[in-house]
Amino acid sequence: MENEELPRAITVKKMENFSKWYDQAIAAAGLIDKRYNVKGMFVWLNYGLETMKIIKDTWDGLFKKSNIKEMYFPLIIPMKYAQQNSSWFEGFKSEAFWVKTMDENNASHILRPTGEPAMYPMFALWIRTYRDLPLRIYETVSSFRYETKMTRPIIRDREITFWYEIHTAHQTKEEADKEIEEAVRINNIIWNKLSIPVLKVEKPKWECFPGAVGAIEYYSIMPDGRVLENGSCNHLGQAYAKKFNIKFRDKDNKEKFVWQTCTGNGARYLVAVISVHGDDKGLVLPPEIAPVQAVITTINVKGEKNKVMKKAEEISEQLEKSGIRVYVDADEKTPGEKFFEWEIKGVPLRIEVGPKDIESKNYFVFRRDENIKISMSEKNIVPECIRLLTEIQKNLLKKAEKFYDEKITEAADRKQLKNIIEQKKIAKVPWCESEECWNKIKEFEEGIELFGADLKKHSGKCIACGKPSAKKGYVAKTY
Amino acid sequence: MENEELPRAITVKKMENFSKWYDQAIAAAGLIDKRYNVKGMFVWLNYGLETMKIIKDTWDGLFKKSNIKEMYFPLIIPMKYAQQNSSWFEGFKSEAFWVKTMDENNASHILRPTGEPAMYPMFALWIRTYRDLPLRIYETVSSFRYETKMTRPIIRDREITFWYEIHTAHQTKEEADKEIEEAVRINNIIWNKLSIPVLKVEKPKWECFPGAVGAIEYYSIMPDGRVLENGSCNHLGQAYAKKFNIKFRDKDNKEKFVWQTCTGNGARYLVAVISVHGDDKGLVLPPEIAPVQAVITTINVKGEKNKVMKKAEEISEQLEKSGIRVYVDADEKTPGEKFFEWEIKGVPLRIEVGPKDIESKNYFVFRRDENIKISMSEKNIVPECIRLLTEIQKNLLKKAEKFYDEKITEAADRKQLKNIIEQKKIAKVPWCESEECWNKIKEFEEGIELFGADLKKHSGKCIACGKPSAKKGYVAKTY
Repeated sequence: MENEELPRAITVKKMENFSKWYDQAIAAAGLIDKRYNVKGMFVWLNYGLETMKIIKDTWDGLFKKSNIKEMYFPLIIPMKYAQQNSSWFEGFKSEAFWVKTMDENNASHILRPTGEPAMYPMFALWIRTYRDLPLRIYETVSSFRYETKMTRPIIRDREITFWYEIHTAHQTKEEADKEIEEAVRINNIIWNKLSIPVLKVEKPKWECFPGAVGAIEYYSIMPDGRVLENGSCNHLGQAYAKKFNIKFRDKDNKEKFVWQTCTGNGARYLVAVISVHGDDKGLVLPPEIAPVQAVITTINVKGEKNKVMKKAEEISEQLEKSGIRVYVDADEKTPGEKFFEWEIKGVPLRIEVGPKDIESKNYFVFRRDENIKISMSEKNIVPECIRLLTEIQKNLLKKAEKFYDEKITEAADRKQLKNIIEQKKIAKVPWCESEECWNKIKEFEEGIELFGADLKKHSGKCIACGKPSAKKGYVAKTY
Repeated sequence: MENEELPRAITVKKMENFSKWYDQAIAAAGLIDKRYNVKGMFVWLNYGLETMKIIKDTWDGLFKKSNIKEMYFPLIIPMKYAQQNSSWFEGFKSEAFWVKTMDENNASHILRPTGEPAMYPMFALWIRTYRDLPLRIYETVSSFRYETKMTRPIIRDREITFWYEIHTAHQTKEEADKEIEEAVRINNIIWNKLSIPVLKVEKPKWECFPGAVGAIEYYSIMPDGRVLENGSCNHLGQAYAKKFNIKFRDKDNKEKFVWQTCTGNGARYLVAVISVHGDDKGLVLPPEIAPVQAVITTINVKGEKNKVMKKAEEISEQLEKSGIRVYVDADEKTPGEKFFEWEIKGVPLRIEVGPKDIESKNYFVFRRDENIKISMSEKNIVPECIRLLTEIQKNLLKKAEKFYDEKITEAADRKQLKNIIEQKKIAKVPWCESEECWNKIKEFEEGIELFGADLKKHSGKCIACGKPSAKKGYVAKTY
């Protein structure tokens, strides 16, 4: 595998062979190199890292504004704490990477699969009285899971990079409820920056950690009609507090367990961006997270190079001054080669500068979202680019909304459900909220599952048992 | 250990008991919590993380400007690559954390102690012809070493957090020489932001990796007269290229090994800041890297709270507009408690706002570097704070230079050397540049070593053999 050449172009259509398209797109755009010699781990190349860092800066900024404090916990967890919550340990022990020194026979530590056993023993030290609450912290970190399912870069990795976890502790259930609302509010803003109308569902209790109150989960819809879990906000109740003995004295000096929430997501945000906005030419990045928002490509004609370069730099400077992230590509390549490369990378705007353009004082600007060229006069370039970037951001959201709308279809009975799944879509079905029907629906078609409930109330008849239902559930094949 | 309370105050003098002072200062200032339950690993608390992130932003910015591209490599290294360079493996195997899955008997992977075996197999894939060169990349990452020496937070850890590594590959030795100059130039800027006149030394060949050309290393002088290695720029020659088979075809289509350099450092920058600038009250942060450059402490008097808060916010806004990182501490504590806390944290400026100050339109501003209060009229606050922050940055450098000057003393013979070491100082001695005398000098006093040569030429007689010497070496106890 390791000597295999990386794909430099995309040879398949996204809607026809999404899986292959994805592998080609992330490689050809220079996001990652999957040839790292550990299965399920990859190298973030510079372009991928820069894109991911802008998404990370977005969440860092939002968390800071919400007064959630960033910290950093070690990656190695002692077995003692890994085992403190036995159901957590049972779930993760076969997926954990075990850590030992050369001289040890048995591993005494594991690499963190999630943050709880690293963080909660510290919470128990930090929280003494109600004055220490709420405690609201987060970290961005790698998590490690020895995945047995097929791995796929950024979607399912053994080193899960750029993973944030917010963990909070509160005096009351009501405060924890509010924290979940805040997590949802923040997630809405992030998804908006990505121009994606994510699917938000409620998880039933039996899908949550034992003792937890509930969870909101996000799913992105993929071109192949399957859904990918993409973030969650978990109301942990007092379940972990009781396992890790996290208590406080309230104003009346009574000892109580704290109420906790945790929220996490990471590089899968980028997976949603790649999959939803990308087209047959490659990535299409929303301006808000594009490391290069406008690329200026020079057309190199002998004897005119200096003139062209000077003008390219001049335009670049003007755009930069207006806060646009711009890059001048003055490489010795043909314009065609440059166009090809920047289109794969999904740069929102491309401005072409050659001797003829300079003479006419009119430039062609290429919009990646619609793949069209617009001619504009030199004096309009800056205001027009600013306007276009805003427009592209909105246009991508609109297109994504249309895609989501088309992909989600109501089904009242099993026949309709079957039909929808066969069309590679997501079905929305009336569901009585019972665990029995939750499980029954899984059996209706191969590979499908009911993965969560719509947050809105409705009134209908459960697709599985026919009894009255007040909720609708989403059914699809999942990643 | 884990239930031990953290020190909240500093009870010893820095110059009298540096070791204890350091432990108390990093805890009381809220930089880290060392009670994490794995020896040699600690939690970065928010204030520590924020400070460290500003230092990291500094290097990120400088590397970007120098066109060194950031990437990210997985933390887990397959044994095969760990063993590819046998002398590297011999050096690290007992210090490595070995990684295995639950079902494996023997570990097939290790956690990265350094980056070479993660990066260089990829270099071998990426570099084909001279057009792929120079390759100049870096990552900031944790490194893992099962330290057998006594661990101490940020100084010597088993998870080395915030560690950057620049790795470059070039066509010629001369290009690699230039890269080392560039690394030194960048390091100078970083050290300047920290207001520290670091000690820069040349390492002899036998201290470098076999086959390497040479290395520049940085050392910070600690209050106890010992020195701490603090970054290095390594000219690797073709040593690693030959081990990892990193070759390119030159313009004449001839196959050649690349020339490589690597440069690394990380959180020890912060150790230098803490140790050199700190005083008996706690940290003293240079304004350039202080997460809070000016704190406004309110004096809460009943019935006047709103007025005081309004004025504090007003001043805060004005300072923020001028680009100063400012925080309003309106907590229900006494002014004394607040002063104490912010002085331990080393915030450069403190502005006190109470009813009397508002009435007189005159405010007291406390300078942490000199521990003095200055009175200033309201209208002068913004320009004066800007001026003071620049002055503090320079003043700290001046004080640190004085400290370094006093700590480094010339010794012409063994008696002088002994005397200097007993005074907890660093000796600068004539040295003939032979390995024999390098080793001989170690035996002169217990625990000392010659740790590098001054870059300037001189002419004298070697302290060990008496033969003519053209270089001087630095001798001290080391961390």
